[in-house]
Amino acid sequence: MDTWEIFTIIGTIAFALSGAIVAFEEKYDLFGIYTLAFITAFGGGMIRNIVVGIPVSAFWSQTSLFIITFCLITILFFLPAFLFKLWDRWGVFFDAVGLSAFAIQGALFAKTANESIFAMMLAAVLTGVGGGILRDVLAGRKPMVLHSDIYAGWALMGGIIIGLGLDHPIMQYSLFVLIIVMRMLTVHYKWRLPQVDKRI
Amino acid sequence: MDTWEIFTIIGTIAFALSGAIVAFEEKYDLFGIYTLAFITAFGGGMIRNIVVGIPVSAFWSQTSLFIITFCLITILFFLPAFLFKLWDRWGVFFDAVGLSAFAIQGALFAKTANESIFAMMLAAVLTGVGGGILRDVLAGRKPMVLHSDIYAGWALMGGIIIGLGLDHPIMQYSLFVLIIVMRMLTVHYKWRLPQVDKRI
Amino acid sequence: MDTWEIFTIIGTIAFALSGAIVAFEEKYDLFGIYTLAFITAFGGGMIRNIVVGIPVSAFWSQTSLFIITFCLITILFFLPAFLFKLWDRWGVFFDAVGLSAFAIQGALFAKTANESIFAMMLAAVLTGVGGGILRDVLAGRKPMVLHSDIYAGWALMGGIIIGLGLDHPIMQYSLFVLIIVMRMLTVHYKWRLPQVDKRI
Repeated sequence: MDTWEIFTIIGTIAFALSGAIVAFEEKYDLFGIYTLAFITAFGGGMIRNIVVGIPVSAFWSQTSLFIITFCLITILFFLPAFLFKLWDRWGVFFDAVGLSAFAIQGALFAKTANESIFAMMLAAVLTGVGGGILRDVLAGRKPMVLHSDIYAGWALMGGIIIGLGLDHPIMQYSLFVLIIVMRMLTVHYKWRLPQVDKRI
Repeated sequence: MDTWEIFTIIGTIAFALSGAIVAFEEKYDLFGIYTLAFITAFGGGMIRNIVVGIPVSAFWSQTSLFIITFCLITILFFLPAFLFKLWDRWGVFFDAVGLSAFAIQGALFAKTANESIFAMMLAAVLTGVGGGILRDVLAGRKPMVLHSDIYAGWALMGGIIIGLGLDHPIMQYSLFVLIIVMRMLTVHYKWRLPQVDKRI
Repeated sequence: MDTWEIFTIIGTIAFALSGAIVAFEEKYDLFGIYTLAFITAFGGGMIRNIVVGIPVSAFWSQTSLFIITFCLITILFFLPAFLFKLWDRWGVFFDAVGLSAFAIQGALFAKTANESIFAMMLAAVLTGVGGGILRDVLAGRKPMVLHSDIYAGWALMGGIIIGLGLDHPIMQYSLFVLIIVMRMLTVHYKWRLPQVDKRI
């Protein structure tokens, strides 16, 4: 198991947890909780494969990750509620790890399948935020990522930098750390992208 | 025409009707009604093919089913309103036939395309509930299947049993009946999956 | 650059503008604005390719169109607000050009990939309205096209006529003008499809 796999597992778990928590908030039932957890964790990669043109068979080789996610969500039901408060503190960090790992791997995936830098940018963003968008749509919410603080922007930055030809592993690890740091700074300083006020 | 085809036609019609009825409730126009009817009836199979990696060309061989569905929705407009009350009584049964037929066929489809039992489980669920989820999202509703009574669970059960290697036709027909019975019992006794109350 | 390409560019820009304007209305941030603009402009073609079974690689050859759209949305932010009022008057026309060009090209795309007239009809409609439906879902709205005035109907008409074998370029240009005219008449006379009132 290499380092990227560990990051991916951390990211997958963080994304699955965020899906499960949204399902709790919406009072969805057991099936809804597993569905939102899996869709948040795996939906972004699935959309990326479809849109960029990577065979979805690649998706189906993640059996161990499916099982880990399933067990984790199941354990969740037996945890005392106060432990969930830790999510406020640590959840943002794990989610940032997931965003960064997913964005970089999304861009690298697109690189092997498709030459276009646009495909790499889109793959980075879709892998990073696609699951969260599906989660919010299935919860009947406006997608958080379209109006909240800066999130997709860092995935896009990752996609652009990979797209410009960042090949060396050390550079990729630096990018991985950079995206996490930028995301944590975003949350801490409440950075937001500007809105545009053009009343029609 | 074999027995499965008859079940599939019953299921397709039941699903199309449920889409049309949601469109009536949302005061959608003619185009909205046909759209919701077709999406509910065919959307699950389409999503399954895309996600599991079955060529969508298989989808396009259902011409006669498209025509039947179109004619049926058209006839619907000329039916007196009181007939729709029958839907309350019989709709649940036809819908259960559809759920069962779609889940089993979805799992069998995945079996021919993909070895993974996860793919079969997902294909059963997607075929059974994917159309209904699309219907609800396009109607601006929270997907019924994520918070209401037990529905997807029986599709999942079908996927698991097929995935464990249920090959004999008699066993498959038994499973078909079992899913219908479980679904009808669910509606009659108002079985629900537990929700999980973890206030964050 | 042939005539169709010019129509496509006009349509793409009109669709991107309508996406950006919905994002303004929903107070989405910069990322949300670009996302809704791109999804409205390109989402319909992407869905069509996936559903009809055209390789998505075709999608990725539109690099210059991506760049034009990106620059245009960026310019938009620096325009004085009063200019947006012009959208009320001219936006409907440009949008009609887009609808017509997208519907015809969608149907022609499907013709090269798939023999079925159903595929051509669906491709025309999906290309014409798919982006708008995604835009509305991501904005947390009920899809306009399912309940508002006649819009998808004209795309469907285009798909049927192409599907019946309209091959000659002059006929195709006539169809192009016809769809625009019908759409403009629809807006002017507020033509609506009937709703169906079947209280359940």
